Amino acid sequence: MDLIWNDRIAEGARGISSSAIRDLLKLTAQPEMISFAGGLPAPELFPAEEISAASEQALAEAPLASLQYGPTEGYAPLRELVAGWLRRLDLPVPPEQLLVTAGSQQGLDLLGRLLIDPGAPVAVEEPTYLGALQAWQTCRPSYLTLPVDEHGLDVGALESLLASGVRPRFLYVVSSFQNPTGTTLSPERRVRLVELAARYALPIVEDDPYGELYYEGARATPLAALDIAMHGELRHVVYLGTLSKLLAPGLRVGWIAAPRALYDRLVMLKQGMDLHTSSTAQLLAYYACRDGLLDRHIPRLRAVYRERRDAMLAALTRQLPAEVRWTRPTGGMFLWLTLPKGQDAQALLGRALERKVAFVPGQPFHPGGGGANTMRLNFSHSPPAQLAEGVTRLAEAMRSG
Amino acid sequence: MDLIWNDRIAEGARGISSSAIRDLLKLTAQPEMISFAGGLPAPELFPAEEISAASEQALAEAPLASLQYGPTEGYAPLRELVAGWLRRLDLPVPPEQLLVTAGSQQGLDLLGRLLIDPGAPVAVEEPTYLGALQAWQTCRPSYLTLPVDEHGLDVGALESLLASGVRPRFLYVVSSFQNPTGTTLSPERRVRLVELAARYALPIVEDDPYGELYYEGARATPLAALDIAMHGELRHVVYLGTLSKLLAPGLRVGWIAAPRALYDRLVMLKQGMDLHTSSTAQLLAYYACRDGLLDRHIPRLRAVYRERRDAMLAALTRQLPAEVRWTRPTGGMFLWLTLPKGQDAQALLGRALERKVAFVPGQPFHPGGGGANTMRLNFSHSPPAQLAEGVTRLAEAMRSG
Repeated sequence: MDLIWNDRIAEGARGISSSAIRDLLKLTAQPEMISFAGGLPAPELFPAEEISAASEQALAEAPLASLQYGPTEGYAPLRELVAGWLRRLDLPVPPEQLLVTAGSQQGLDLLGRLLIDPGAPVAVEEPTYLGALQAWQTCRPSYLTLPVDEHGLDVGALESLLASGVRPRFLYVVSSFQNPTGTTLSPERRVRLVELAARYALPIVEDDPYGELYYEGARATPLAALDIAMHGELRHVVYLGTLSKLLAPGLRVGWIAAPRALYDRLVMLKQGMDLHTSSTAQLLAYYACRDGLLDRHIPRLRAVYRERRDAMLAALTRQLPAEVRWTRPTGGMFLWLTLPKGQDAQALLGRALERKVAFVPGQPFHPGGGGANTMRLNFSHSPPAQLAEGVTRLAEAMRSG
Repeated sequence: MDLIWNDRIAEGARGISSSAIRDLLKLTAQPEMISFAGGLPAPELFPAEEISAASEQALAEAPLASLQYGPTEGYAPLRELVAGWLRRLDLPVPPEQLLVTAGSQQGLDLLGRLLIDPGAPVAVEEPTYLGALQAWQTCRPSYLTLPVDEHGLDVGALESLLASGVRPRFLYVVSSFQNPTGTTLSPERRVRLVELAARYALPIVEDDPYGELYYEGARATPLAALDIAMHGELRHVVYLGTLSKLLAPGLRVGWIAAPRALYDRLVMLKQGMDLHTSSTAQLLAYYACRDGLLDRHIPRLRAVYRERRDAMLAALTRQLPAEVRWTRPTGGMFLWLTLPKGQDAQALLGRALERKVAFVPGQPFHPGGGGANTMRLNFSHSPPAQLAEGVTRLAEAMRSG
């Protein structure tokens, strides 16, 4: 057959950066490999029995809703449940503005397709979440990159950009325990950011998969909650949530809370894409969560992941050369490591893999280029002893350079 | 917020034709309404207990694969199982060419995004499946429409088109028990079509959700099987299959069997869209099917749906005015009714709804326009007595016009 491609899509779907990471993730499946490379929840913590009981209940009590076609917007009781969950975060969004998606990844795809033309400006943190760049690879935006420091996105840099007259289609921000750096947007910056969004009518796409996984203090207030507090309804922020990090990513159940101006188009676009998110998965999620499983499960995740974060930070302090720097996340799954200027994380990865330890080099998280001396480490996937051993191997790889 | 849309996508996502049908489907949920409008499997036939047992087994035996992130290509044992299933249809595709999708709808979306540029020619049957038109609404192809008669797509018309030098990006065809007409491509035309595809290097997208639901004779040989028989491998045909009509649409589990030239791009594009199809749904499908559930279940569907088709055909013959024509499908879920020229199915729908019977007017299935005097009737969703009563009401509505 003679395939004539939609060049933009076909080129985007070459997955330039992601195929290297796919290969890396395959490597990490080798025996004895200690992997800091993934972004996977710890599998030993999956509440498989509770999920199994919920599945049985869903199929017994609501076989039709579990198995038949359903509304594109999502299973109504699940949307109610998510609305109730968000209300507890001071994020009172009516179910009518909630769209159930196949994980946040589909949310990113939907928003990119709807709001990005080729060449259109999109503001992102740098570094930013690789999955978002992958989702939008086929849309070919022109990225405006904003620096990230220990208080999250540099809101001053965004303000300068907006004041200069640039109008991004939207700003994409992972507001808490960012992937990849682990940093969290400070309360002051959150307020300033939502004020900026209102002043410049800038749509913000807030991706918040890790917000519940805080290991110090309290949960950060989502930008979406501030938007509602300031404007009486969700007006400037599109909020992406997911069960992937809180219950199980294999379900592929997430949601978008969208301003009214956006909601109907998102629904119609999703209908053409997959009709609706798996009913089976949605009902399983609903039956698992309606009796408070998340309230029991999330504190377990916090306790275990906090211990792992501490173990990795202690090992890094103990083992790594003094000139290496890293972030100290107060939650989430990742930390970000910066080698001295001129050192190359990709080259280090080669030496690390020889010693059976893996991580993700930071360059692909930089849509503007650069970041060759940076790398992302996951600390949530492995128990403390393995984390310590992995850091020992990593330190050896660094010294052997 | 100031939303600047990707105009093409935002316009497409207005869902011009589909929103009317969504409203219609809501209407059909009214009490006492007899609906011939949907495309839903009969809910009373869902093997809910067997699916529940499979779910329990999947979560007990393979909790990790059920709940964790999985490969974009799909759960490997499910791809093996589908490959085995296709082998029995003389369609020996290796698992490496199978991509598990969120139903066939996602397959249509993937193929549209990858192969259609705005204005690019795409050949379709007329009438054709509305869901495909919806999936591609945002891609804005220029449709080349080919007539359908009682032997399916008019392959001669396609040959003339190709001989005139036109090169569609692909031909889309529902080869068996077409949605909406219920007609099936004859064996002679199938062979001729695959020969044409080879001669003109024309990619064919074969959508085959209903092929197993035959009520007379044997299963039709898929175009994809002929392609393999003639060329030693899948070369010209992209084959879409799904569990939606055979097991349960709520699972959202389907597959694409793709020529090698296409496969990798499909995988990379899907990865950016949703990472992978719900693991929970895939494993449930795998555990349900591995012990032969489909072999037990599909004959039950055939027996029940055959009886319903017969009931509807008998009622139509008995009740409808002599000048109305309809197809006599040998399988599937739909038949197609043609009113005398000048009569309007949309106007008839108004009178039918007053009498509590619903159907889908045929116009939206015609990308080239026309079809105002046509309509689609589903016969699989209601038991025989209801079908007969619905046809009585429909005949009244016709006579009252």
